[in-house]
Amino acid sequence: MWYTECGKDGDVVLSSRVRLARNLKGIPFPARANEEAQNLVLSRCREAMLERENPWQRQVKFIDLSVMEPYEKQAIAERHLISPQMMDNNVKRGILLSDDNQLSILLNEEDHIRIQVMAAGFDLERCFQDANQVDDLMEETVEYAFDNRIGYLTCCPTNAGTGMRASVMVHLPALTLSGTVNQVIDSLAQLGMTVRGIFGEGSKAVGNLYQISNQLTLGATEEDILEKFKQIVEEVIEKEREMRKRLLQTQKYKLEDRLMRSLGILKYAVILNSDEAMKRLSDVRLGIELGLIGDITLETVNSIIYEVLPANIMKKYNLSDPTERDLKRAEIVRERMEEGCSKID
Amino acid sequence: MWYTECGKDGDVVLSSRVRLARNLKGIPFPARANEEAQNLVLSRCREAMLERENPWQRQVKFIDLSVMEPYEKQAIAERHLISPQMMDNNVKRGILLSDDNQLSILLNEEDHIRIQVMAAGFDLERCFQDANQVDDLMEETVEYAFDNRIGYLTCCPTNAGTGMRASVMVHLPALTLSGTVNQVIDSLAQLGMTVRGIFGEGSKAVGNLYQISNQLTLGATEEDILEKFKQIVEEVIEKEREMRKRLLQTQKYKLEDRLMRSLGILKYAVILNSDEAMKRLSDVRLGIELGLIGDITLETVNSIIYEVLPANIMKKYNLSDPTERDLKRAEIVRERMEEGCSKID
Repeated sequence: MWYTECGKDGDVVLSSRVRLARNLKGIPFPARANEEAQNLVLSRCREAMLERENPWQRQVKFIDLSVMEPYEKQAIAERHLISPQMMDNNVKRGILLSDDNQLSILLNEEDHIRIQVMAAGFDLERCFQDANQVDDLMEETVEYAFDNRIGYLTCCPTNAGTGMRASVMVHLPALTLSGTVNQVIDSLAQLGMTVRGIFGEGSKAVGNLYQISNQLTLGATEEDILEKFKQIVEEVIEKEREMRKRLLQTQKYKLEDRLMRSLGILKYAVILNSDEAMKRLSDVRLGIELGLIGDITLETVNSIIYEVLPANIMKKYNLSDPTERDLKRAEIVRERMEEGCSKID
Repeated sequence: MWYTECGKDGDVVLSSRVRLARNLKGIPFPARANEEAQNLVLSRCREAMLERENPWQRQVKFIDLSVMEPYEKQAIAERHLISPQMMDNNVKRGILLSDDNQLSILLNEEDHIRIQVMAAGFDLERCFQDANQVDDLMEETVEYAFDNRIGYLTCCPTNAGTGMRASVMVHLPALTLSGTVNQVIDSLAQLGMTVRGIFGEGSKAVGNLYQISNQLTLGATEEDILEKFKQIVEEVIEKEREMRKRLLQTQKYKLEDRLMRSLGILKYAVILNSDEAMKRLSDVRLGIELGLIGDITLETVNSIIYEVLPANIMKKYNLSDPTERDLKRAEIVRERMEEGCSKID
């Protein structure tokens, strides 16, 4: 899967994402639409992507969320393929999902259509290109709600205009360990960026993973917004890299001890909850990035992160008990780790 | 060395010890004797053990503590070859130490002579036999302070009579984990036993290791005292074994998780202080005893326990900095562990 890959600037950026919010002209926003209108959105979008010859046709499938069990929805929400808002059954919702999971078109989320493209590493261009291509394709058969002055109309005014939001998932262990991450978050906020923790509840940054998103959607072109966003993310990447170097210089053994202990615990623990797994995996990731831990790749760590998400384990192994889940998580991690990783001297 | 061996009941009893306190007739106790008298004690005992044909002659050496550096004395005190009281230089002190370190005759400690014999596992008989043999041998050339009514006279009246104290070093992780160890200690106290932690400061039980000693020295024969002491220790051994079984039944995974994590940490930590090392080694020991951890033996764990004692590391590697010592300790433990241990399924 794409999310196990280690892309450009993969030492800091796990993945990039671009999403475009669109609505169909003449149909109320999902929360206000009646069931007939909601179904109409689903069928129009399915037609556009699945029933006409196009480059995506063969690799995209429609998934009807209204017939899925809660734990199945939880499992795909954990992978950021749908948003938590799509978990309820108040609205007829669905997604058009590509086989490689890079493209997911959320139907009847807050807006009728949210075209979402993800890529490994720092690669917003590719995400934007693909999202753009899908956008054009949809527009061949459906008519978007569009205002010449404002741009694309959206349910929430903060999305209006380009309807675009770009985001990156970044690993900032050194900025977090050194306590400077809050300062970085504050300065990003002043530049109009939002920073949230991911995989955790609310904004808790589990595993030192953060999502940085641009907030600006209005008054500039997509290209300008992306360019500005890229520059800001590049600065964050540099800050994190510098702090890693500094930590390695000023507290090598303490840092090494922490990272190697986490490796030891992942290799031997019998019970692992989700938060601890993320924290330890973050440490191992940093160990790899600093060249202290070898024989295990960032790709392996990336894939474990997704493999051990709680609902994913419950679904895959048909478990219902949290203790069984935490035992299974430890078992999966041990197995993946056993494939071998050692300390680089 | 004897202390790395796993003797009888080695799953609970690491070692046994018998010591006999003796004093020379007509010479004041060490603390009150002048230097000449102190030196006389040393020379008389050296003569008795080293200058006459006897079974111990070839394997015993005299060590003059007054010419040793403090860190060297600390190192042999950690191994319980001398008592902490012998660290100071107020009195001319020495030991007669056998090559295998099982016999150490402390000269001018609290009493003129303390014959101390240690053995692996639960083997008080052997300790007593050897101590007795040395005692007889000494008595061939020196005259002990002895009272027909009381028995052997000692500096502290609590040692008078037989002058004998028997003790065992026991590993009680299950009784400690389950919180019942204090109850056991209380009932031992009522039976006239003393329980102390070992390797720790004061009575702190580091690594769930305790020393149980008999207090009674007066009014019974050595054989009777030993027999009663043995029975009491056997009960403690049974209590510990039963609690291990119960823990394994009632909280298998939680216990296993704890023990395996300790193994992982010992295999990967870069900095290890003494207390943590003892705690983790205690866990690994329990893991071996419960059959959860394989490929590593109790003998290996026993030898690591002694190898990583603080002053021993400082002395062996010529270190003075505590951080360097804790780095070296982690390195030693990693190396010993690397020789291989894995989870038994």
